[in-house]
Amino acid sequence: MCHFYAIISKMFNKEDVNLSLLRKRAFNLRWATVDKGVIPLTAADPDFPCAPEIAQAITEYTKGRYLSYGPAEGLLEFRESMANYFRTKRNIPASKDLLFPVDSAAFGIWLTCKAFLTPGDESIIFDPVDFLFRYSVESVGGIAMPFAIPAGSKVDFEALEKRITTRTRLLCICNPLNPTGKVFTRAELFSFGELACKYNLTILSDEIWSDIVFTPGIFTSIASLSDEISDRTITITGFSKSYGLAGLRIGAVMTTNQKLYTQLFNASLHSSTIHGAGVLSQIAATAALNSCEYWLNDFLVHLQAMRDLCVRELNSIEGFHCIAPEGCYVAFADISGTNKTSSEIHEILLKQAKVAVVPGLKQWFGEGAENYIRISFATSEDILNDSFQRIKRIINL
Amino acid sequence: MCHFYAIISKMFNKEDVNLSLLRKRAFNLRWATVDKGVIPLTAADPDFPCAPEIAQAITEYTKGRYLSYGPAEGLLEFRESMANYFRTKRNIPASKDLLFPVDSAAFGIWLTCKAFLTPGDESIIFDPVDFLFRYSVESVGGIAMPFAIPAGSKVDFEALEKRITTRTRLLCICNPLNPTGKVFTRAELFSFGELACKYNLTILSDEIWSDIVFTPGIFTSIASLSDEISDRTITITGFSKSYGLAGLRIGAVMTTNQKLYTQLFNASLHSSTIHGAGVLSQIAATAALNSCEYWLNDFLVHLQAMRDLCVRELNSIEGFHCIAPEGCYVAFADISGTNKTSSEIHEILLKQAKVAVVPGLKQWFGEGAENYIRISFATSEDILNDSFQRIKRIINL
Repeated sequence: MCHFYAIISKMFNKEDVNLSLLRKRAFNLRWATVDKGVIPLTAADPDFPCAPEIAQAITEYTKGRYLSYGPAEGLLEFRESMANYFRTKRNIPASKDLLFPVDSAAFGIWLTCKAFLTPGDESIIFDPVDFLFRYSVESVGGIAMPFAIPAGSKVDFEALEKRITTRTRLLCICNPLNPTGKVFTRAELFSFGELACKYNLTILSDEIWSDIVFTPGIFTSIASLSDEISDRTITITGFSKSYGLAGLRIGAVMTTNQKLYTQLFNASLHSSTIHGAGVLSQIAATAALNSCEYWLNDFLVHLQAMRDLCVRELNSIEGFHCIAPEGCYVAFADISGTNKTSSEIHEILLKQAKVAVVPGLKQWFGEGAENYIRISFATSEDILNDSFQRIKRIINL
Repeated sequence: MCHFYAIISKMFNKEDVNLSLLRKRAFNLRWATVDKGVIPLTAADPDFPCAPEIAQAITEYTKGRYLSYGPAEGLLEFRESMANYFRTKRNIPASKDLLFPVDSAAFGIWLTCKAFLTPGDESIIFDPVDFLFRYSVESVGGIAMPFAIPAGSKVDFEALEKRITTRTRLLCICNPLNPTGKVFTRAELFSFGELACKYNLTILSDEIWSDIVFTPGIFTSIASLSDEISDRTITITGFSKSYGLAGLRIGAVMTTNQKLYTQLFNASLHSSTIHGAGVLSQIAATAALNSCEYWLNDFLVHLQAMRDLCVRELNSIEGFHCIAPEGCYVAFADISGTNKTSSEIHEILLKQAKVAVVPGLKQWFGEGAENYIRISFATSEDILNDSFQRIKRIINL
């Protein structure tokens, strides 16, 4: 027992962050792309190695040396584990036959837009929210209709209903909401569901962050609320946030509705092999689902401590204000008190403090992100302490 | 030396085909999808395990347990090895900065259509040819204009020129040509290039089969012929045919023209992370390029013997006729002498001989495949002998 605890408690410390490997391998605005000496708190991707069980599953599978065509609809073991996850962790009546692996949650979002929007159709997206929503809607010829949910505020359903027109087809939910970290309540999700039913909208529920919810918060999947809601919902998840597998490009799309499944699967071009999810990536994700709950739980304990540290530190900086996120491992800080734009703060932090953050630009998160910066805290306490010392040395001058 | 030779000569024999693993892992009409007792000579995917160096590279990389976001433009080591391959093996002045990994050659074909066709644009495709050409052209709203190159015939360039209209934008070359196994001569490729220059067409050159060319044939990349031709060409390759990595979903698209590269890269959505190639897949492909030439050479020696065996056997069957393919590990047999359709022959072989082949249906290869069946011979001599015994027992009744 003691030994087991010692292993667990060692997992998310300074010595577990292998900076020399991260500098070779972590792209997308992270260690491999920033100047030496800069700490990247940018893309939401953990600084920790993945669970050993995932590496072991990849190695074990690779030993057989057959890496032939996988099935277009996904490996059975992946679909079974994923359906089990949705049933037991999300209380959705999922079936292995109504979900399939996709090569990222990002592709899942784009695919849902492609399957359910025709050019000129409108889609409600939140504001602020990850850029992928507007990007995907527009990339298939749809019109993105942003709906404001400012950090720390409740959902204004009257205002939302007014955004719905005769051209609205899709309601895009991001839960937990990146970048504000809001975790929607059951009541809020019911209201979203009611509106979708009333106006016959398809619901896209991006739940890639759903494992990362801090106590005492409780995550609810909108598809768990009722059959009527579930049958108009596409639930999307992935393995980059919870398990650090962004480089393997693996996620899943799920519905309980055979008709929606068929539309989605046909739009995916998986049958033609033009798109698909790699077999090793599915094997890795299956191992994550089946063997790594202990790892995720410990990661969450660490993240909650880092969340508290970040919020405390950010609120101690003059001109900064940060509401504690309920989910996601990003802190979204209002920097309007500095009388500088988020681009200016980003520039100062990068050049003078040598800390890279994501500025709240419209192109990243929508208009509602103006005067905010986003900081990823999926790293060690030492790296965060170092970062805040650097930031405070500059900003609190 | 003796020991080394013993290892090499052992690589492509009966005992190297692990049927129990293939029955679990080989999908896409192959072992994992056919009834027990059926031999699938269907999808062109080797029955042999991949080179040990590839498995080793995957295992070695996975040991580090960082599987973070890769770069949108591809890993440097992949791009360098790929550029080196195109320069040294294909005589194309390739640059690591004008190529990128894609998650399959199939995606590369689709992407090229997406990048260079607008709805209503016409694209010349060969007939017969892999279904992916028509499928990709039509999936982006283009019009596929089939151009007949019957098995064993030369290219009729006058007829080709007549197929070009003011709406023609893209000339799709498949070299070697699946399913007929034709390897285009330098002179033929020059003529394609001249026509493309004359009518200002972009050339898509699918060269996924380019490593699989039998002696004394010589493969030529159209992009190696002149700068003028190269600068209007997208060359596509992949790692499923040469190295058995279909399940890893990895290929590459390359050009020598910065403008075409930019159009292609923007159309790929790689920057947004919606599409991309997995990092382990790139690592595996890099190992294939850097360390597995010996394996590929030996595979080719084996394949050439299997090609000869197949052609001999097919021509010994009443009503069958097969011209020896110059490239690709598929035999394309004319079965019109049986007075049966390819669907009927497919059905008889599957039900009575317990051998699965691909019927020459329009949906798979175009109209020019009528009265043909396609047989993949990337398997052991024993399995092929068993297959032909079964086939001959039924057909030669």
